[in-house]
Amino acid sequence: MREFSALQGSVLHEFSRAEKRGLYKAIYKRRDVRGHFLSKAVAKELIEKLLDAAHHAGSVGFMQPWSFIVIRSDEVKRRVKHVFDRANQAAAQVHQGERRELYSRLKLEGILEAPVNLCVTCDPTRHGPHVLGRHTIRETDVYSTCCAIQNFWLAARAEGIGVGWVSIFDPAELREVLHIPEHVIPVAYLCVGYVREFLPRPELESAGWLSRLPLEELIFHEQWGRRHADQT
Amino acid sequence: MREFSALQGSVLHEFSRAEKRGLYKAIYKRRDVRGHFLSKAVAKELIEKLLDAAHHAGSVGFMQPWSFIVIRSDEVKRRVKHVFDRANQAAAQVHQGERRELYSRLKLEGILEAPVNLCVTCDPTRHGPHVLGRHTIRETDVYSTCCAIQNFWLAARAEGIGVGWVSIFDPAELREVLHIPEHVIPVAYLCVGYVREFLPRPELESAGWLSRLPLEELIFHEQWGRRHADQT
Repeated sequence: MREFSALQGSVLHEFSRAEKRGLYKAIYKRRDVRGHFLSKAVAKELIEKLLDAAHHAGSVGFMQPWSFIVIRSDEVKRRVKHVFDRANQAAAQVHQGERRELYSRLKLEGILEAPVNLCVTCDPTRHGPHVLGRHTIRETDVYSTCCAIQNFWLAARAEGIGVGWVSIFDPAELREVLHIPEHVIPVAYLCVGYVREFLPRPELESAGWLSRLPLEELIFHEQWGRRHADQT
Repeated sequence: MREFSALQGSVLHEFSRAEKRGLYKAIYKRRDVRGHFLSKAVAKELIEKLLDAAHHAGSVGFMQPWSFIVIRSDEVKRRVKHVFDRANQAAAQVHQGERRELYSRLKLEGILEAPVNLCVTCDPTRHGPHVLGRHTIRETDVYSTCCAIQNFWLAARAEGIGVGWVSIFDPAELREVLHIPEHVIPVAYLCVGYVREFLPRPELESAGWLSRLPLEELIFHEQWGRRHADQT
C-alpha cells in the first residue's frame, strides 16, 4: 500500500506534455553555432539567468568548481582570436588532401562576431583537499563543470541564444590572456549571442565530415559488447 | 533591413513560456538521487528515449565518443556494488572526527535498489586519430560525454525518473566487471529509476556538508578576478 501511494506520487513527478516538449526541443534543437551570430546585444540579466541555470548543475561533493568569465571587450576577444588562429593553423596540418580543403572551408568559431564570449573554468582546489566522491576519480570536478556548460547551452537555446564551443587553443595561452591562475582549468570557451538561424542539423553532419551514429550501435547490455538484452 | 528581418527571426527562435518552464524546471528540480528509488520497472523504450536525448548532445568534431551499458542484472549490480564498497571504505578514511561521522551517515549510491544502472563510457579513439577540434585539448572527448550525461539526467527528470551519479570506484575494477576495453573511459556510473520523491534541495546542502555558493562570487568580467563590468 505504501509502495502504491508512493507510485502515485512518482507519476506526479513526471512533467506535463508542454513542459517535456520544452526540454526535448532544447535538447534536439541546440546547435554548436559558429557562423550565424547577430550583433544585437545580450542583456546582462539574461546572461545571469543562463549562468544561474549553469550553476544549478550537480557537482561532485557539491563542490561547484566552476567560475565564469564574461567577455564583452573587443580587445580581449581579439587577443583570444589570435590564440585560436595559432592553434588552428597547427590543427589544419594534420588533415590531408580533400579533408584539409574541407577543414579550411569550415567556420570553427565566432569569437569576434558573438557579442558575448564566456570562459567556463574549473578550480580543482575548491573546497579541497578532500572533496566527497572525488577520492578515486579526480576528473569528476571537470565532469561537473561540463554538466554546468550543458545547462547553459540548453537554457540559451530556449532563450533563442546561440552558443558555439571553441576548443582549438592552447590552454596556457588562453590562461595568459584571461589572467587565469595556473591551477585553474579553462574547460570551455563559448561564443554567445542571438543568431540569424539555428541550422536543422549539426554543421559537421551537413558538411559530410561525419554522420550521426545509429543509437543502437552505442547501446550494450550488462557488459561491453553485448548487443542484446537477455530475454529472461 | 536584412539585420532587422533576421532579428525578427531571432525572436521567433525563443521558446514559448510553457516550453521554457519545462526546461528550467528540469534544470532546477534535477537531483542526484541516492536513497529514494522504487522497484517499479523502467520500460526499455523509455530508457532508449533518454539515451537518444543523450546521443543528441554536441560532441567535439561530431565524434560522438559515448557508449551506454544498460545494466539490469542483479548479479552485475552486486559486483559493481562490491567495487564501490571497497573504494568507499578508503574514501571515508580521509575525513576526520565529526566530518567522518557525517560522511558515514550519508547514502552515496543506490546501485542495488535502482532497477536500472547505466555506465556511460568515452572512447577516445573513435573516428580518430585526428578528430576535428581536438588537436590541442584531448579531453574534449570526455567533455562531450559529460554533456550527453547531462542531457540524460535532465530528460530523466522530466519523465519522473531519478538519476544518481556514483563516482566512488576504481575505474580499472569497474572496467573488469563490465568487460570495458582498456582504452575506453568509464566516465559515469548512474543509478536510474522511479523515485519516491525528488528532494527540494541537494542532499549535501541539506545535510550541511557544503552550502551553495552565491552566483555573483563566481562571475568575473573580461578577466579572472575582475568582479565588476566596465561601466563604459
